[in-house]
Order: sequence, then structure tokens, then C-alpha cells
Amino acid sequence: MKATVMYAAGDVRVEEVPDAALSDPTDALVRITQSCICGSDLWPYKQMEATDGGTRMGHEFVGVVEAVGADVTTVAAGDLVIAPFVWSDGSCDFCQEGLHTSCRHGGVWGNEDNGAQAEAVRVPWADGTLVKVGAEPDEALMPSLLTLSDVFATGHHAARAAEVRPGVTAAVVGDGAVGLCGVLAAKRLGAERIIILGRHEDRTAIARELGATDVVPERGEQATEKVRELTADGAHCVLECVGTADSFATAASIARAGGTVGRVGVPQEGKLPRANDMFFRNIAVRGGVAPARAYIPELLPDVLEGRVEPGKVFDSVIGIDAVPEGYRAMNDRETIKALVRP
Amino acid sequence: MKATVMYAAGDVRVEEVPDAALSDPTDALVRITQSCICGSDLWPYKQMEATDGGTRMGHEFVGVVEAVGADVTTVAAGDLVIAPFVWSDGSCDFCQEGLHTSCRHGGVWGNEDNGAQAEAVRVPWADGTLVKVGAEPDEALMPSLLTLSDVFATGHHAARAAEVRPGVTAAVVGDGAVGLCGVLAAKRLGAERIIILGRHEDRTAIARELGATDVVPERGEQATEKVRELTADGAHCVLECVGTADSFATAASIARAGGTVGRVGVPQEGKLPRANDMFFRNIAVRGGVAPARAYIPELLPDVLEGRVEPGKVFDSVIGIDAVPEGYRAMNDRETIKALVRP
Repeated sequence: MKATVMYAAGDVRVEEVPDAALSDPTDALVRITQSCICGSDLWPYKQMEATDGGTRMGHEFVGVVEAVGADVTTVAAGDLVIAPFVWSDGSCDFCQEGLHTSCRHGGVWGNEDNGAQAEAVRVPWADGTLVKVGAEPDEALMPSLLTLSDVFATGHHAARAAEVRPGVTAAVVGDGAVGLCGVLAAKRLGAERIIILGRHEDRTAIARELGATDVVPERGEQATEKVRELTADGAHCVLECVGTADSFATAASIARAGGTVGRVGVPQEGKLPRANDMFFRNIAVRGGVAPARAYIPELLPDVLEGRVEPGKVFDSVIGIDAVPEGYRAMNDRETIKALVRP
Repeated sequence: MKATVMYAAGDVRVEEVPDAALSDPTDALVRITQSCICGSDLWPYKQMEATDGGTRMGHEFVGVVEAVGADVTTVAAGDLVIAPFVWSDGSCDFCQEGLHTSCRHGGVWGNEDNGAQAEAVRVPWADGTLVKVGAEPDEALMPSLLTLSDVFATGHHAARAAEVRPGVTAAVVGDGAVGLCGVLAAKRLGAERIIILGRHEDRTAIARELGATDVVPERGEQATEKVRELTADGAHCVLECVGTADSFATAASIARAGGTVGRVGVPQEGKLPRANDMFFRNIAVRGGVAPARAYIPELLPDVLEGRVEPGKVFDSVIGIDAVPEGYRAMNDRETIKALVRP
């Protein structure tokens, strides 16, 4: 089968690899119908040191179950399924607490022999991991269903972590696909005013479609001043959707005293800045890697019934052979997010 | 009157200064009956650069109102009052939200001409700031009442920020007076198991009296291992009561995935470490400078009725002239916390 392998920064190849196959009795084999490239895939695309064996890429997918191991009971061949970007057993204490990303048997796609930018994938702990769509959705819904795998679930985690609730002012740092999904998630949770910080007009236009009420193209100090001006002293809830120290500093500085930063940008530095400012203004920091598996059941009905359309973040649809070009286009910011149809 | 002035690291003097007096119509003049030295006073005691004018010291006190300005309506001469360590107008949006430490007219004692390690003090915004005790408490209760001014309110803030609730396991980093009050606050909020990290046996003995179920004298990596062993993967709620980067790192590392660090230690570095670990394990960080004014009405009845005895953190009672010696003894860890009777 075909699969995507990254060998070094900038070196992404689609290659013939051994077919994905069942291995453990708790596995499922899924034929992928939709996958995509993640903003987080761009970090290794920029920085990865060269390796001989390479790493399989891709961790977001929707597909159809082809076969299941002997112990799998909740999905069967022919089922349309959504996979969160982390697999999980569904039964350990962390899964029971809704934190599937800390599952005691968990793991992520995108390792030496298993990735989702491919034609098929082995799914460990299928019962704990996969969510059956349980409907035959219109083809037009498929991009939105795919976002439940990661990007919309992550935007939702940012909004939940930032404690978005009806009536608040939310600010979203970052106009990438996660930031756009953060806008939608904040709107869905009842934010009255939603400010997006972003400079790319094509992206902020989508943000407005998804619920943003204000756009702040300024950066750094100017952005802080602008948001404080717009809000009288900052936003109750700030969604940090980038992950650099600068974007975190901006997120903290535009939060209103007593407010909360919900962070989902994968941190690119080991320390969080503005520790003192956050202390004296009682700014909370929550969030992290999104437990998508916990959120899919909550978000799925809104997608199936068309109340939200997170699939708008995809502005490009490509075949598997075009994945390397998809990375380049996303890295050069020509594309917001590329959907892959293997 | 006599007041405490710090001129440089290690240079604390008790001097004759002009009598405290009313200035604004919203002021009260309070004769101090109990004050104390705060752990946070030790930071300038260790580091302050020399100044000619010096800084008045002290921000925790209980006293009796001597006079009030024309606009003051809620307290009157003769009232026994508790003051939080930050004054606040009681009416701005932040005060209404319970975040009096961000009051739009707020300020702190311990500035060029106003401090509470003194015989009397001017209280700005008396209506918003002071809490009338409204009883004639037994003298034995006075140390506990004094802790509402800062140290117990701060321990309570740590516990609230760490989201302590019935049944959880809480861990407290730091065996200073704030850490000890954190233990008591965690107990009061229903924590089932309370682990204190501390090496000083006199202090951990008090921690046990106040509710600690386990003492971990190890530090750094060893402390983390020990807490993880005791708890199966960390504490739900961690109270960070020191403020150094090392203590914060320990607090983050002993938190269970999905748990919360409530921090009240004044940060001594500008960045928070373990940003990545906290991200991948979804550890939240909350807290900061404690809005004591918001908590006093909630905590006061428990103190007056003897259900909690935070005054146990005072192991020394001194007169005003002995304040410099009190600083020395606290800095050398001979004393946990010194109560001052001017």
C-alpha cells in the first residue's frame, strides 16, 4: 500500500510499504477514506534531523473498517469510523476520567510503521479508540467529520480549557486551522464576542464565517494594546493555538485579570513566559494535548446535523501522491489545511 | 509612632516616624494590635538594593479603628477589624468579580510611607478594604484572626486554585507558614489525603496537626518518585507555596495527569518550567496573589467558632522593637512566622 514517510526536514515521500494488517486481537484494520496534514506535522517538516528509516506520518483519519481482531466488539467490517489522533484502551483510569491522551496503553500514529497519511492503518485498542459514525452521512459532511479526529476536537479543547461559557469575550491567538476551529468552538460554547489575532486575510475571512466578531492583525505589544482597547482590559478566555513562546506571551498578556489561557499549541520551548504577570493578575493556564476521544461523542451530533461546519478549514483536497506537495504548500502558507483522499 | 523601615538587604530598622493620619475621606486610621512578618518580606531582606529613604514594611494586621474619613460608612471608631494585604475600593468591576487584588484603586502596604509593622496605619478605601470582626473574640483567637489578613487566605487561595474538593489527594510543596496554611485549607475543603513536601521536622509536625497525612522529606527527582509511589501517578491537586523555579518544577511533576497546580509562591523567576510535560499531561496552573478580601467573610466564621486554627503557624511573639531580630530569625529558619504586638 502507499504511505507517507518523512526522512528529514523538507523530505517527505509517498512510498510503497507492506500492507497494514491486524496484529493484536484488540486491533482493527481500517481502509482510510479521508486523512489530512496537521499543523503539528509542520514542526518536523521544519526541523527533523535526517534518519535512515524515516517516520510514517499522519494521525487524523476517517475510514471504513475492513477487519477486526478477535476481541473487538464495538466496531465491525463495513463500519464508517472516526479515529482520534491518540489511541486509547477506553478502560484505564485516565480513559474513565476522560483523559484518553494519558491512557495507560495509549500511543500515537506517526511512528516507525503506522501512520494515517496512507491507504490503510492498523488501529490498536479499536474498541477504546474508534467511534462509529452510525449514519451514512452525505459526502459533503466528510471534511467536517474528519476534523473530529484532531483539529476541531483540539479547538474545542482550547475553548473548554479557556473556560469559554455563555456571554464571555474570547480571544483566539493563531489563524491556522486549529485557531479557526477554536473560533467555532468558542461560538458553539456561547462566547458573545470572539476576537481572532491573525494577519492572513484569507484565514480571518473564514474566522468571521465561523463566528469571529473582531479581527486583530497586529502582533506583540500592538496586539495586546488593541485587544485591551476593544475589551476594556482583556478577554476572559484566551485560546492559544500556536505554541511558540511569543504567541503564549501574547495570549497571557491579552487575558483579563482572573481570566484563563487555554493552550493547545504544541509548545516549542520548554518554559512558559510571563510567569510574574500571570501571577499578579491571577491568569490561569489550562489545556494541552486534546483528548479528542472524549469529545467526539459530544461534537458528532452537531456535525451530522449541520449545526457546525468545521470542515471549512480545509481549502485543498489532494490525492495521496500529492502529500509531499501538500506539506510544502501548508509550510509556505499557500494552504490552510490539506485533506487527503488516498 | 514606631514603624519598620527596610533600607537594604539585611538592614531592617524600627524608627520613629510621623504618626499615621487620615488623608482621604475614604480612609480609616487603625491602631494595630497584631501584625506579623511575612515569608514574602524575606525576599527583599535577602536581595534589596540599598536606598536612602527605605521602604516601610508589613502588610498583615488586625487592629482597632481610631478614626474614619467623612465618606466611610461600614466601620467606625472602636471596631476590631481585619485588613487584607491589598487595599481595594470594593466597588470596581474586579472587586465585584471577587478579584480584589486587581482593584482599579488598589494598592499594597509596604511602600514609602505606609506599612503595617508599625503602631498604626492609614487604610485607604476603608469600606472596601476592612472587615469588621463583629465579635469580641477571645485573646487566644487573635493569631488565627491575623492569618486571615494574608497567610491563611493565601493557603486557601492555593487550595482553591488547585481545585481541592472532597475526596482528592492534595500535595503541598513548601513547609513554610503558607504551606502549613495550605494543608489546613486543603483539609477544610475536603481533601482525603494530604502530602506535605518538607524537610523541617518542627514544621512538618505542625503540618500533621493541621491535617497532613503524609510527609515527604525528599527533594527534586526523589520527591517526585516518592509522591508518585504514594499516590499511583501523582496528586490531583498540588499547592505550590514557595515560588522558585525548582519548587514549581516539583509541583508540576508530582501532579497527576489532568490535575492542577495552585500556585501562591511569589515567582522568583520570570518563566514557568516544565511547559512541555504539563502540556502533554494536561496539567493546569492557576492561582497567583490571593484576593484575601474575597475570602475573609467565608473563613472568618470557621476561625471564630474554632473549627480551624491557622494561628498555629506563629511560633514566636515579639514586640515592635524586636522586628529586626524577627526578620533574622525567620530568614535563618529559627522561626516559622513571628507575630508582632506593637
